[in-house]
Amino acid sequence: MATQMIIINGGSSSGKSGIVRCLQAVLPDPWLAFGVDSFVDAMPARMRASTEGLEITADGGVSVGADFMELQTAWMRGVVAMARAGARVIVDDVFLGGAATQQRWQKLLGELDVLWVGVRCEGAVAAGREIARGDRVQGMAASQAEMVHDGVIYDVEVDTTRTESLACARTIAAQVG
Amino acid sequence: MATQMIIINGGSSSGKSGIVRCLQAVLPDPWLAFGVDSFVDAMPARMRASTEGLEITADGGVSVGADFMELQTAWMRGVVAMARAGARVIVDDVFLGGAATQQRWQKLLGELDVLWVGVRCEGAVAAGREIARGDRVQGMAASQAEMVHDGVIYDVEVDTTRTESLACARTIAAQVG
Amino acid sequence: MATQMIIINGGSSSGKSGIVRCLQAVLPDPWLAFGVDSFVDAMPARMRASTEGLEITADGGVSVGADFMELQTAWMRGVVAMARAGARVIVDDVFLGGAATQQRWQKLLGELDVLWVGVRCEGAVAAGREIARGDRVQGMAASQAEMVHDGVIYDVEVDTTRTESLACARTIAAQVG
Amino acid sequence: MATQMIIINGGSSSGKSGIVRCLQAVLPDPWLAFGVDSFVDAMPARMRASTEGLEITADGGVSVGADFMELQTAWMRGVVAMARAGARVIVDDVFLGGAATQQRWQKLLGELDVLWVGVRCEGAVAAGREIARGDRVQGMAASQAEMVHDGVIYDVEVDTTRTESLACARTIAAQVG
Repeated sequence: MATQMIIINGGSSSGKSGIVRCLQAVLPDPWLAFGVDSFVDAMPARMRASTEGLEITADGGVSVGADFMELQTAWMRGVVAMARAGARVIVDDVFLGGAATQQRWQKLLGELDVLWVGVRCEGAVAAGREIARGDRVQGMAASQAEMVHDGVIYDVEVDTTRTESLACARTIAAQVG
Repeated sequence: MATQMIIINGGSSSGKSGIVRCLQAVLPDPWLAFGVDSFVDAMPARMRASTEGLEITADGGVSVGADFMELQTAWMRGVVAMARAGARVIVDDVFLGGAATQQRWQKLLGELDVLWVGVRCEGAVAAGREIARGDRVQGMAASQAEMVHDGVIYDVEVDTTRTESLACARTIAAQVG
Repeated sequence: MATQMIIINGGSSSGKSGIVRCLQAVLPDPWLAFGVDSFVDAMPARMRASTEGLEITADGGVSVGADFMELQTAWMRGVVAMARAGARVIVDDVFLGGAATQQRWQKLLGELDVLWVGVRCEGAVAAGREIARGDRVQGMAASQAEMVHDGVIYDVEVDTTRTESLACARTIAAQVG
Repeated sequence: MATQMIIINGGSSSGKSGIVRCLQAVLPDPWLAFGVDSFVDAMPARMRASTEGLEITADGGVSVGADFMELQTAWMRGVVAMARAGARVIVDDVFLGGAATQQRWQKLLGELDVLWVGVRCEGAVAAGREIARGDRVQGMAASQAEMVHDGVIYDVEVDTTRTESLACARTIAAQVG
């Protein structure tokens, strides 16, 4: 059966967005791309710095509250519905809960044919890229590098530490049915 | 019954985005905001300048192809699914087909309680704001100012020509059940 | 003598940037535009939240430290040098020190022919636009609306409270020699 | 004598901006960063697609006209004036004319103590990163990869093909007097 959805998980500054843009370029069919960043952009500004919404501490720690989780679940359902309606959908996410976050997705996916992708990057390298991009709180990359993969099961894994985004995208694209 | 979705229609540079941000600020519950701009951002880059996707001519004319329409319908279904799953959702759209675009939405909405909002702005004023924002092809604002409202039926209409975004948002918020 | 530089002063969210883009569009010659925002973008990221650099409090108060002032003076000299070298230059600034900031500029301008422009906007209206743009700390617009004009002398003043950016730009352009 | 200015030259998508942000982070003193991108942002919008200004062809070719060159020279003088006034300044540029562009800078620099930096990246790798960033016309990276270095003399060269931005920045910082 044809792949209907690609779910990409990786820590902050691991290179997910670049891989997604390359995937959209190399896959022959048009794929829509959504992710945790576009979800956060959709939230009210006041939720981006609140206990109920999203909090980012000075050392790059991230915690999310009840409102965030509730809205995110509804957003996940909607993204799944787009794939079910025939749009090919790529999602890039940060599984803050590791395996538990994967299970949140799995409960909503039903019979959808999903390709699970892990994007790894050594913490020290991701931390350097966090400085180079200049728009993230320092510390987020290092703290998320390992924990987001904890217990998660993938169909394909790539590592951006020494491999370019485009090469990673080609490895992933080769697994798209 | 409580309003589950707010669909806002208006031409380019009519002030929709500012109204949406004000609505998110004045409404007591958290509302997620999506729109034609976030949909276009989700498309592959190559579709943003293609016959099958989205084409913007040098004078600001916009035409969309078969792939665009197909993906957009799936995206609309997904956004509706988010509202059905309990997220309060604001959508800002440009009804290039006027009443026909409203009917595309209505076919997907089912029993959802939707507030339809028209955002008007005199063409000459919108054209001036298009110059002031500096990131749009000139001509788009003027060409869309009237046509997007053709035959569309609203619950509430606001006009940004002489009314600030925040005041418009308050008028709309007063109609949210 | 021909105007060589246009210095525009106004509080946060008073509409300076929109006026600058309209000025660049309506003036027949090409004018370069710089401002306090592009200066802040040029600083190291770590100076954007430090006692020595720039600090923005939760209520929108702004304070600048010794390093900021020193680098800013060098930046001002450079911008003046561009105008002296023949580039027509528009600067939009926020005179946090009112008349004292104008005097900082005047000491560097020498014989340059400068058009001084004040951009006013009622505090309550600017505060609403601050919510509508969504990328500024709330409170900045209201706190700066009056104080930046304190004791400053202008060649031309515009008020965006009820006048569009493009109309304001035309009023200013009419004074450009 | 202490380095007063760092001029970084490299083709599109070779990684200059990331290196600049890392340099600003690792250098103990505050350095201001300007570059061809901030210069282009300062130009009137209409010059970004005109024979007299800047033209980018569909295959990523770049040509600049008389107005562009004239304004750019004035801008270069201004940036040099900032360094002379005591600000430490990093400039990232694309030497479209190779050695001739370096000579344009040298004529303006006088006695300033400048560190010349070449940023290299294999054309094929830069072309892949151009796809990954998604905001550049494809072809620009490959066409500029070699030509911008033609005849240019450097104090230090780095190659981002297999070296991270932060490591490149450290190599450069070690040469800053």
